[in-house]
Amino acid sequence: MTSKKQVQHMKWWGWGVEGVAFHHEDKPEFAPFVVKAVGLDVRTSEKAVVLPFDQLDVPAPKIDASFFAALAAIVGEDNVTSDAMERVVHTYGKSLRDLVRVRSGKIDRTPDVVVYPADEAETQGIVDAAVAAGAVIIPFGGGSNIAGSLEPLAAEQRTVVSLDLGRLDRVLDVDADSGLARIQAGALGPSLEAQLTERGWTLGHFPDSFTYSTLGGWVATRSSGMQSDKYGDIADIARGLRVVRPGGTLVIRAIPSASTGPSVREMILGSEGRLGVITEVTVQVHRIPEKRDIYAYFFPNWETSLKAMQEIAESDATPSITRVSDARETGFSLATSKASKGMSKFLSGTVLPGLMKRKGYKLDEICLSFIGYEGGEAHAKHQKALVDAIIKKHNGMGVGKGPGVLYDQKKFDTPYLRDFLLDQGAAGDVSETAAPWSKLAAVHDGAYAAAQGAFDKLGKVGWIMSHVSHSYHSGACLYFTFAFVFGDDDKLAEYDLVKRAIQQSFIDNGGTISHHHGVGLEHSPWLEQDISTEGVGLMNGLFESADPNGQFNPGKIIYGGAAVTVPAATKA
Amino acid sequence: MTSKKQVQHMKWWGWGVEGVAFHHEDKPEFAPFVVKAVGLDVRTSEKAVVLPFDQLDVPAPKIDASFFAALAAIVGEDNVTSDAMERVVHTYGKSLRDLVRVRSGKIDRTPDVVVYPADEAETQGIVDAAVAAGAVIIPFGGGSNIAGSLEPLAAEQRTVVSLDLGRLDRVLDVDADSGLARIQAGALGPSLEAQLTERGWTLGHFPDSFTYSTLGGWVATRSSGMQSDKYGDIADIARGLRVVRPGGTLVIRAIPSASTGPSVREMILGSEGRLGVITEVTVQVHRIPEKRDIYAYFFPNWETSLKAMQEIAESDATPSITRVSDARETGFSLATSKASKGMSKFLSGTVLPGLMKRKGYKLDEICLSFIGYEGGEAHAKHQKALVDAIIKKHNGMGVGKGPGVLYDQKKFDTPYLRDFLLDQGAAGDVSETAAPWSKLAAVHDGAYAAAQGAFDKLGKVGWIMSHVSHSYHSGACLYFTFAFVFGDDDKLAEYDLVKRAIQQSFIDNGGTISHHHGVGLEHSPWLEQDISTEGVGLMNGLFESADPNGQFNPGKIIYGGAAVTVPAATKA
Repeated sequence: MTSKKQVQHMKWWGWGVEGVAFHHEDKPEFAPFVVKAVGLDVRTSEKAVVLPFDQLDVPAPKIDASFFAALAAIVGEDNVTSDAMERVVHTYGKSLRDLVRVRSGKIDRTPDVVVYPADEAETQGIVDAAVAAGAVIIPFGGGSNIAGSLEPLAAEQRTVVSLDLGRLDRVLDVDADSGLARIQAGALGPSLEAQLTERGWTLGHFPDSFTYSTLGGWVATRSSGMQSDKYGDIADIARGLRVVRPGGTLVIRAIPSASTGPSVREMILGSEGRLGVITEVTVQVHRIPEKRDIYAYFFPNWETSLKAMQEIAESDATPSITRVSDARETGFSLATSKASKGMSKFLSGTVLPGLMKRKGYKLDEICLSFIGYEGGEAHAKHQKALVDAIIKKHNGMGVGKGPGVLYDQKKFDTPYLRDFLLDQGAAGDVSETAAPWSKLAAVHDGAYAAAQGAFDKLGKVGWIMSHVSHSYHSGACLYFTFAFVFGDDDKLAEYDLVKRAIQQSFIDNGGTISHHHGVGLEHSPWLEQDISTEGVGLMNGLFESADPNGQFNPGKIIYGGAAVTVPAATKA
Repeated sequence: MTSKKQVQHMKWWGWGVEGVAFHHEDKPEFAPFVVKAVGLDVRTSEKAVVLPFDQLDVPAPKIDASFFAALAAIVGEDNVTSDAMERVVHTYGKSLRDLVRVRSGKIDRTPDVVVYPADEAETQGIVDAAVAAGAVIIPFGGGSNIAGSLEPLAAEQRTVVSLDLGRLDRVLDVDADSGLARIQAGALGPSLEAQLTERGWTLGHFPDSFTYSTLGGWVATRSSGMQSDKYGDIADIARGLRVVRPGGTLVIRAIPSASTGPSVREMILGSEGRLGVITEVTVQVHRIPEKRDIYAYFFPNWETSLKAMQEIAESDATPSITRVSDARETGFSLATSKASKGMSKFLSGTVLPGLMKRKGYKLDEICLSFIGYEGGEAHAKHQKALVDAIIKKHNGMGVGKGPGVLYDQKKFDTPYLRDFLLDQGAAGDVSETAAPWSKLAAVHDGAYAAAQGAFDKLGKVGWIMSHVSHSYHSGACLYFTFAFVFGDDDKLAEYDLVKRAIQQSFIDNGGTISHHHGVGLEHSPWLEQDISTEGVGLMNGLFESADPNGQFNPGKIIYGGAAVTVPAATKA
């Protein structure tokens, strides 16, 4: 949907824009795969119907006429609204919990008003007016969050302002000497990347949500992208910040590194709106490299895959992407390939399976890996030589650039699959963590066991699969996807049982509760187990001192109240 | 001096241990150089005499017998003391302000008691006892700080505990799969590096203070080392932390990257004791590389040097060291070489000067650069090829590994020069910053102009020189050394005039007040100009919520009181 001033939003009930969806018809192996995985036949299953919007019971907005008028005086009448559709679009992100609720019309609390400032000065005006009016402010970027970072607390009695940064979408300036670009926080991935490309630069930040997420949102949730191995996580990339706070703007200049006390820059990173509204970020940008290749490899099994990834991380090589799927996810990738091309075609011949057999591979254990090389021709070649030697040592095999090109083309399409499964009455969702190399196998197996335990409790055939998505010197991010068919009872309760078991297994095996999705409401019950009671205490002190009346996205990251249904984690 | 339990400390009046000092006699060009630079003839100048320790007027300790006994009960009687020498050693760091004061017996306030815990449990005991007793706690590592981070506030009425971590000096564990080592915070550079080397690992963190600084101190001040281009600043290296807080220990596990809200890890980094006592750090370690070479290069002038460094940072190359001295510092380096070897010998022949002449160099404009390459043989060679091409393009010339070996050997000796100059009645000190590449020339020239302006005000012949010490994608660290001969009046007032003018010039030209020395008392007047009023507000809220009675190293980083002589910065 398009709202005020042409700010583009996703479907109110799902991912992406109207008319784009996942289809299985051109992927002949997909349907049988899903039958085996979760016992659902997508060819014959009954399709759930999303309630028509006008049948939703949208609560009335709670806002004084005078406060509404004050906001209109700041941004103009066209840029402030209490329209029901606008409020629903700004109520949730796109987590599975969000989609289940919004599709079924469970909307306890929407923002009361949505405002679209044109610039930082208007943002300051809105913040100051809202603080003075005793209102709550929730900044809104692309709305792609899946950690419950956007929803107003159900019991919130104050007026809730959704502050949509969508009009702040420009690359303001590129400092070519320093490789630094000043970009407004509301710029969506494709828009900012296009504006940079025009000038010969790239940000190199490509999260799965790229198409519908913003720079400000990336900073507010500590995002990581597919090429972060080379370009760094957003925490490395974001050097300068402008954050509107009550009465004034916090300015962190773009300094390459500083020893000026505890890092305020790193306080804003991941703050999910609790410390103010990010309006501008100065980011590291890079000249578009001569080479930007993704190569595909196969490993005989998961254990070997992890060992090879670890050795690459320890080596002199600095690839741009280091991704490897476990055997289950590899099987899924092959099954979701289109009939005419992709990995499926690769393996349907006789050459590759023959080669694999000679290397002692078992086809149900093979792991598919993508490794990216960027830079000048000579550099990319040198990187590949370093990596190839390690892969060879671990009995891996390269299969060229073909599959990587396909991967690169469809990498942002995965979220559509979740809507497709919801349409069939099934949950498909993700959970991600990071851990030291020495603990990754245990984290992986622990998550599998936890999910299986939850599926057993629910009496369901469930599915879980995983990949390493980013590597660091000391460890990696493990990304899990899980699915099962909903029963007739409380869908969220079923989902919570599985998701929470997985989250708890991360902590129990030495991982973090999130590598790049943020905390929001969904992950907050584990924060204390993750960063310790004293760690939460320091962070809470920061929030309370910065926002004594809890007006900035209250309850997120650290939930201090009691009225929302985020139960304490139960120790496994 | 050696104190309780064999914890080694530096001279109470200067850098390093007794018996080691800077000598000029074997460097024939040094004395004439200093005459020209600051108008001082070190061959004939009158030598200042450090007051004998027993002539110091050391204030009596203010401590209740019961609190002293409580501390003794925790650490044992041998590990708690109010001895005058111990208290003086723990009063200051080794900044020029510190040395001028301690040498002249200006000691307004010492800690009242020094305690040496054996482990984290004892540290917790001390912290809890001190908090309960209403005392102040100042953690002490190697005592090398030069930003005024260690001294008790002159007007402090409460009992001040210096908590010396010197006995917590062990590498506890190396996780070989993850390249992570758990190391106690009190371990000095050479000790921890030796313990790691024994097991085949290196931390790769080599600040100028390496010999007399500790891991905990590096974390508490956001240190950076000579090979940080490759290994990262300590903020990148330190993955896990244990910090003793009142009533409990904050634990940040070693996760490679996480999106768990504002980074508590990055709150502890640079906190200079204000948030608790760091007892243990889990750091990234690396296998000792096959190659670890430092090559020397010359550039025709400073402008070209900066351009080449910028291009190297933007390129695919990842050297371990990128250092280049400006023309003045190059002249100084040549003058301080020993007669028999080093750069002096290099340039005293006819071959090199001849080559330079043919390349159009003017000898008084040349800039000396050291670039390091580490890793496997093939990788180091590839790196050097990438860098050499850039250097060639900028009319630079390589002169091999010889000078780099000498540089590597004497790199930790520079601080002794400050004591030598103080002996001659002269100030020699340092000031450092970081800025984007586009602003580095202005920051450099601005600091020169500011120093010259201050020298003019003082009616002195002064000296300033500079080098790029670390490079990042978006900018670099500029490190300045300045010197002048003290008058008969207030030495600190003269020093402050110069140092403060330089610090203000950093801010005015787009740099930070410190890249790696920390804030302490000395740099705190500029913090607001650096990270903005709102930034200081957030940080202050963190400090006050974490330590409501101001018992942890009060007044450092953000000075909230009024009794200490740190005047507000005056705009240039």
